[in-house]
Amino acid sequence: MDDAPTSERTTRGFALPVALQQLSIDLFTQLRELSWDGTGVSRETYGASETAAFELVERQAREAGLETEWDAARNLIVRLPGQNPDLATVATGSHLDSVPEGGNFDGAAGVVAGLTALLAAKDRGAPARSMALYALRGEESAWFGGPCYFGSRALFGGLKDDDFESPHRNGQKTLEDSMRETGANLDLLKSGQPLIDPAHFACWFELHIEQGPVLIARDKPVGLVTGIRGNTRYRRVVCRGEAAHSGAVPRWLRHDAVLAMSDLLVRIDEHWRVLLEWGEDLVVTAGVVETNPAEHAVSRVPGEVTFALEYRSQDPKTLESFAALLQSECEQVGEKRGVNFALGPPSVTTPAQMSPNIIALIESICTEQKIDYEIMPSGAGHDSSVFANAGIPAGMIFVRNDKGSHNPHEAMDFDDFFLAAEILNGAMQRAAQNTEGYRP
Amino acid sequence: MDDAPTSERTTRGFALPVALQQLSIDLFTQLRELSWDGTGVSRETYGASETAAFELVERQAREAGLETEWDAARNLIVRLPGQNPDLATVATGSHLDSVPEGGNFDGAAGVVAGLTALLAAKDRGAPARSMALYALRGEESAWFGGPCYFGSRALFGGLKDDDFESPHRNGQKTLEDSMRETGANLDLLKSGQPLIDPAHFACWFELHIEQGPVLIARDKPVGLVTGIRGNTRYRRVVCRGEAAHSGAVPRWLRHDAVLAMSDLLVRIDEHWRVLLEWGEDLVVTAGVVETNPAEHAVSRVPGEVTFALEYRSQDPKTLESFAALLQSECEQVGEKRGVNFALGPPSVTTPAQMSPNIIALIESICTEQKIDYEIMPSGAGHDSSVFANAGIPAGMIFVRNDKGSHNPHEAMDFDDFFLAAEILNGAMQRAAQNTEGYRP
Repeated sequence: MDDAPTSERTTRGFALPVALQQLSIDLFTQLRELSWDGTGVSRETYGASETAAFELVERQAREAGLETEWDAARNLIVRLPGQNPDLATVATGSHLDSVPEGGNFDGAAGVVAGLTALLAAKDRGAPARSMALYALRGEESAWFGGPCYFGSRALFGGLKDDDFESPHRNGQKTLEDSMRETGANLDLLKSGQPLIDPAHFACWFELHIEQGPVLIARDKPVGLVTGIRGNTRYRRVVCRGEAAHSGAVPRWLRHDAVLAMSDLLVRIDEHWRVLLEWGEDLVVTAGVVETNPAEHAVSRVPGEVTFALEYRSQDPKTLESFAALLQSECEQVGEKRGVNFALGPPSVTTPAQMSPNIIALIESICTEQKIDYEIMPSGAGHDSSVFANAGIPAGMIFVRNDKGSHNPHEAMDFDDFFLAAEILNGAMQRAAQNTEGYRP
Repeated sequence: MDDAPTSERTTRGFALPVALQQLSIDLFTQLRELSWDGTGVSRETYGASETAAFELVERQAREAGLETEWDAARNLIVRLPGQNPDLATVATGSHLDSVPEGGNFDGAAGVVAGLTALLAAKDRGAPARSMALYALRGEESAWFGGPCYFGSRALFGGLKDDDFESPHRNGQKTLEDSMRETGANLDLLKSGQPLIDPAHFACWFELHIEQGPVLIARDKPVGLVTGIRGNTRYRRVVCRGEAAHSGAVPRWLRHDAVLAMSDLLVRIDEHWRVLLEWGEDLVVTAGVVETNPAEHAVSRVPGEVTFALEYRSQDPKTLESFAALLQSECEQVGEKRGVNFALGPPSVTTPAQMSPNIIALIESICTEQKIDYEIMPSGAGHDSSVFANAGIPAGMIFVRNDKGSHNPHEAMDFDDFFLAAEILNGAMQRAAQNTEGYRP
């Protein structure tokens, strides 16, 4: 938090003025202070700590002369009116909640950067289009047992009955209870009516820290996101073979569940390697492995093992084809080794494509500003997928970040953040002057 | 238990007379009755239920006119004196304990068959050599947390300080306490002095149910055992990679512990397949697998997994070479995938070779009696390994048995048992007349 503003940046076209750099640093400091839990940062989805962060941003925006309002889902919207109110709005934003004992930048970086972009635009004089910053509620899945993107989904009428009934991790209330405490309009949210027409948005930008190590590994300060991976999850695959005496049963009479799982995973891993070389976007993960403690032993051929299997891709076709490949490998290994794989029902999240027009816009700013960047998918989910899947041209800017996210050790360098904010600033300014829009 | 004696067998040279068939069936019935625990059979190592079984066998032997004695380890020895007391004894035996909730035949079959062999010999008139049946104490490892073969090891002075301190599974006493309760001479046993000179034995036979499914699969009633596999056990191998976000970390930056373990196990399995075709004796088992519950999650690349690894062979050289192969594969997979395998210290049990002379003797009886047999290793450990490793020419006869052992469902057909007892009877009679002996 002791990084000094970098005045050298002010000489560049869309670089953040020193005052806005300082404002960012101060905001991060205040956000950390108001949500420090002793170990990390906790800003609870639809909780008091999240609301406190929203109120801090609101105060800051109003002091700087921007308009603010709260919608029926208690998202905060900060506005800079444009010269032509008939044109669709150029919007940015991100979330302000965190996981329990999380980091300060996951989510908040996008809100802080968005505020600086609006303030920088305000200083230049009102653009053609209105600009807006959305501080979104409840993006994290950690507080209500899985479901997430509550604030962004509410915008487009996308909350379901199940969402409202999601139990809080403390087991003592539901999402509906938490929403009511913040003053959300539950009748309206439950009706499934959109709070806003997607046509209201000319385009959508989100700046977010990278949650993986790619930018560190590639030594690039920022990433341009091509799409947000969807995923297919089998939470508990059961591989059943036959338990047996480890000394007395020869290889040809075994139905070893652990060797069968290993065989399956190595085949899947090899397919993954080849599919990457084939140009597909894919990540595959197997975890949460356990043999049955009621029957496993050092001197026993394992009769059962359970594991979780997840794969993600930006491409719905890849997800679909991989499901078929997985099924076929389960059958082949099952037949070869005399075991059965029960995959169970998958849970599926749809991928989201970022807009090629918006990617091109962001890329042009990077090129102009001579900022090195990496073109990459987002493996983690983001509110931007909700905007993209509502038909809004969307783009994301990743900021290099060490040590992952969802932990107190996430480490974003302020110099990298200022570069990313500069790109956001430039892209939003240009979009706000472009009266043609970015829809295909 | 309702199998009727098979009178057809009595027409064959060494076949058990109907009266001895009936005696066997009655003995098994009484053994089951006195050790039934409601679920299976429990005859506790150096416990009252084991002693009760010993006393039943003693009573039966004395009623039939055989001599009996108890040694300092409270093994029961039943004797049929031969015509020449200077010649070494032809001996057989097995154990009478069971695992908790175990089966009635594991161990007891060898003692019952031995008794019938001595009685059949008695009926024919005293042979040249004395014959003896050893009912051995404490063969199972289930009661005292791992160590086993207490009775047979005591014979040759092989009990160690650690053995006496082994805690009972009930946590309330040690092996020493249990031994003392049966009246064993602890001073003598602790001195490490042999209770008997291996030279006292001309040879050793043990009949035992097969604990695997090979004879069922091969459709053979009996097996001739070539050797008893030794084993090397790594109780807790730790594979450490690096935990990471399952969506945001690409393949080339992962250090996935579960994929690394799978890779290792599939390589090991493939080596195993090839080594079997190469003619090696080997079984390999990995079990007790678990990712770290403190950090595993469906959407997390697993950073750690633990598993047990065990391999067995009749051949000490195979065990030694496989250790080196395992080490090298751990290093290769570790390097390829950026993980580390910590094998930890292995526990090692030495293999035992059955005597080729004794195998040839048993085989000749089978051929003569036109009994189909399988030549096979014993994967499970047996008291016979202690006799063989004491330099006594030893052989084992396996009886076909369905559903494995160490469970109440073990299923030995009495017709198969009578065939195996016939072979034991024949082999012991011939050995008792052979004054040359079987030492190489």
